[in-house]
Amino acid sequence: MTLALDAAAQDLLFRAAHTANTFTDEPVSDEQVQAIYDLVQYAPTAFNSTPLRVVLVRSEEARERLVSHMAEGNRPKTRTAPLVAILATDNEFHEELPHLMPHFPQAKDLFFSERPAREGSAALNGALQAGYFILGIRAAGLAAGPMTGFDFAGVQKEFLDDDHTPLMVINIGKPGVDASHPRSPRLAYDQVVTTV
Amino acid sequence: MTLALDAAAQDLLFRAAHTANTFTDEPVSDEQVQAIYDLVQYAPTAFNSTPLRVVLVRSEEARERLVSHMAEGNRPKTRTAPLVAILATDNEFHEELPHLMPHFPQAKDLFFSERPAREGSAALNGALQAGYFILGIRAAGLAAGPMTGFDFAGVQKEFLDDDHTPLMVINIGKPGVDASHPRSPRLAYDQVVTTV
Repeated sequence: MTLALDAAAQDLLFRAAHTANTFTDEPVSDEQVQAIYDLVQYAPTAFNSTPLRVVLVRSEEARERLVSHMAEGNRPKTRTAPLVAILATDNEFHEELPHLMPHFPQAKDLFFSERPAREGSAALNGALQAGYFILGIRAAGLAAGPMTGFDFAGVQKEFLDDDHTPLMVINIGKPGVDASHPRSPRLAYDQVVTTV
Repeated sequence: MTLALDAAAQDLLFRAAHTANTFTDEPVSDEQVQAIYDLVQYAPTAFNSTPLRVVLVRSEEARERLVSHMAEGNRPKTRTAPLVAILATDNEFHEELPHLMPHFPQAKDLFFSERPAREGSAALNGALQAGYFILGIRAAGLAAGPMTGFDFAGVQKEFLDDDHTPLMVINIGKPGVDASHPRSPRLAYDQVVTTV
């Protein structure tokens, strides 16, 4: 069985791509991040809600503040990556729904008038979009180093507000020396997929 | 700024791809699903935990049971799609960690001895993997119709167990007549990405 996606793209996004833990000094430009967003913005979310928000940590001062909230083992790479991004959900995403879903503007009030419903939907769809974003980083010829080892409350307090919940922090750049671990095993198909 | 990903792959996965609401009669084979999994299995998750599980709903009897739990507006397409998949998280994924993370088998007990920690990690990483899976469906030359409009407790009770939480249901097949809505607006880059 062959896929419609060409082999080079399969390698770039999945088969030859690895999470990076070290990076070269080559900067990651705003234009590169714009190109990533321009690509991944089209991938689907429920009600086209697109609750993912991204904070690029560019200043030295902000980088040090972020590093102080990372788990010990994540600090050196978060300090030295060319670019670090905080991915978060906007739990007030419903305010944008009349614009994002012009053919069904009543979705905002029908489904998302309550904050817990918004938080649940934002958590699921924001994480979906984080998956798209990680592949978008690879589509730009860069490596991603996603991390959840950090103080979530601390990062929220320092960089976000009560309406935004952190999802993950991602180091971004060209892979450096010994950037990746050998690939670990994956589950067999039959351990993941069953049929009824 | 050009991406490393070739234009045909950008179109297949993102720019020309649309959520499908109608499908042709062409079946989706197990070999196609295996090819999708063979590709997307490599995308990253925290601790290589890969908590996503997939139930392919193939029998007529199971299809009708699933349709009865779908929201009214999702029933016709869920009834007629060539293949329907339930995506769920395995909240006991930690049992596989010694195999999935052979260089750090103590992760199982260090981080995931408590069920709430497992559920939170499975929800985030399962949704990440759902994003990869949706793009994998497109990589196979198929269209995805992801849905969260269904009775989650009912689907869990009918098709899963207490250790598995539904994430979404996805219709899969070749797009049919009038398969997609016109593309809705997306947020501007500056509404999504900020810099500190």
